[in-house]
Amino acid sequence: MTDSKTEFEMRLRQSAAETEVMLSSLLSDTCLGDEIARPPHLMAAMRHGSLNGGKRLRPFLLREAAALLGGSSQAALRAGVALECLHCYSLIHDDLPAMDDDDLRRGQPTVHKAFDEATAILAGDSLLTYAFDIIAAPETELADRLKMELVLSLARAAGPGGMAGGQALDLAAEKSPPDEAGIVILQTMKTGALLRFACEAGAIVAGSPSADRERLRLFGQKIGLAYQLADDLLDLTSDAATLGKAAGKDAARGKGTLVGMHGMDWAEKRLDALTEEAVELLAPYGEKALILQETARFIASRDN
Amino acid sequence: MTDSKTEFEMRLRQSAAETEVMLSSLLSDTCLGDEIARPPHLMAAMRHGSLNGGKRLRPFLLREAAALLGGSSQAALRAGVALECLHCYSLIHDDLPAMDDDDLRRGQPTVHKAFDEATAILAGDSLLTYAFDIIAAPETELADRLKMELVLSLARAAGPGGMAGGQALDLAAEKSPPDEAGIVILQTMKTGALLRFACEAGAIVAGSPSADRERLRLFGQKIGLAYQLADDLLDLTSDAATLGKAAGKDAARGKGTLVGMHGMDWAEKRLDALTEEAVELLAPYGEKALILQETARFIASRDN
Repeated sequence: MTDSKTEFEMRLRQSAAETEVMLSSLLSDTCLGDEIARPPHLMAAMRHGSLNGGKRLRPFLLREAAALLGGSSQAALRAGVALECLHCYSLIHDDLPAMDDDDLRRGQPTVHKAFDEATAILAGDSLLTYAFDIIAAPETELADRLKMELVLSLARAAGPGGMAGGQALDLAAEKSPPDEAGIVILQTMKTGALLRFACEAGAIVAGSPSADRERLRLFGQKIGLAYQLADDLLDLTSDAATLGKAAGKDAARGKGTLVGMHGMDWAEKRLDALTEEAVELLAPYGEKALILQETARFIASRDN
Repeated sequence: MTDSKTEFEMRLRQSAAETEVMLSSLLSDTCLGDEIARPPHLMAAMRHGSLNGGKRLRPFLLREAAALLGGSSQAALRAGVALECLHCYSLIHDDLPAMDDDDLRRGQPTVHKAFDEATAILAGDSLLTYAFDIIAAPETELADRLKMELVLSLARAAGPGGMAGGQALDLAAEKSPPDEAGIVILQTMKTGALLRFACEAGAIVAGSPSADRERLRLFGQKIGLAYQLADDLLDLTSDAATLGKAAGKDAARGKGTLVGMHGMDWAEKRLDALTEEAVELLAPYGEKALILQETARFIASRDN
């Protein structure tokens, strides 16, 4: 158990470094394939909003899921970078004054603070658009049919029936607190959809049969719910210094969370149960699944 | 000549109606393929920002280009609706207080006025994301290879090296007016890229050889430049009542335009020349190209 934890940590760091290298190279001021150089100011804002450290958990999940099922590591890395672009767009737009109005992210000024609001909106729009470019580009070594599946699943995970819809529900929740079912739907869409996509996309890259794809999707769903519970617990117990952003903010705004509704004991038990269910789901893959199982435990701990 | 103009007008109206019907159906609150219903409030904002009349010029160009080259009309309609979603996202975000700060569009309140700023940002994000969903969806009857070409070309036309980059240059131009070359680059990216994509996408849908694709792309480029010149001329000569938005706004902000730089006489001659060049480009297709040629003349007139 300790061994797989050590290996997990090493692989997570290694994957984050590889993701950053490709992200950085793809976010240069010029690009093959574009006729006109991209505006340096806009690219700087996109880099500010994406090359700011971070564990790169979503690309890691995608790459490990693809590795588990025998998918191309080149295609998985590119799909992972695309997913990270999309994740970073969502953070930039969520931080805007009209949304969560956050000045800090990971201890650094948010994009609209470091640049301006218009540039932050455009940097987010551009990262979102670029995610689809990266997947579809000829440099991604994957059959067109599988690229198409990735584009479709990512668009569904991120769109009005996924992450963006979840953010809309989250804004509405400030005015009228949802009930328990409403909270679960909101969280499944807002934070769960991309984590679920990350795991499912690994199976898509590998061209796996639908049973594997469904299993990875379900795994992603469980860890998505766990992620949100751990985040809500962290929000209650952390302070701003360790979190790098304003703590207790969600609770102060009166946003309903399952932790607030059922208490911390319940939440910790539920978190353990979800993690065990996720780990169990991958048992049929045997030792090959150890790293993904360790990732599920890591998400539940959030001891970072 | 009069006959093709009459037929053009009829087909443009007919195409706009068909585009609206599909757009409206795709922007319903629920959708097959999504697991969770989309938030009605968000969908209402997306509809407000997209189902507001308009000539649907971009889908028309795409559909006519596909028809010229023998492409599937079903796929062309869906790709056209996707393109219109993307165009409407750009209008919603451009209208935001941090951007052009417009209260009216086509005589109606803009999305952030009719709803709120956060909802307008999310509605734009969602329309952008949904554009890729519509192309990739199994309902679009097109080979995966061609869908992939559409996704890639659309992402390039809309991203940091295309429309979004052009909008970033436009914002920068308010502080430091660009020279003539800078204005052409800005306009080629900001308004030209989607018009060029519209024409090229028709050739992609038809799976045409690269010579046809290049010809249509060049046609799109010419009418893109013409479109912007006509728009700048209109901005100088119109008043708010006929335009449905604040007139003379670009000039008042000191944004450089080619019309301002070279005068109206020069601009009208240049507009005629671009239109004739565009018309000539399609001469090899004979009578089949009459409608697209008429569209080029319509864009130059902007008598609406």
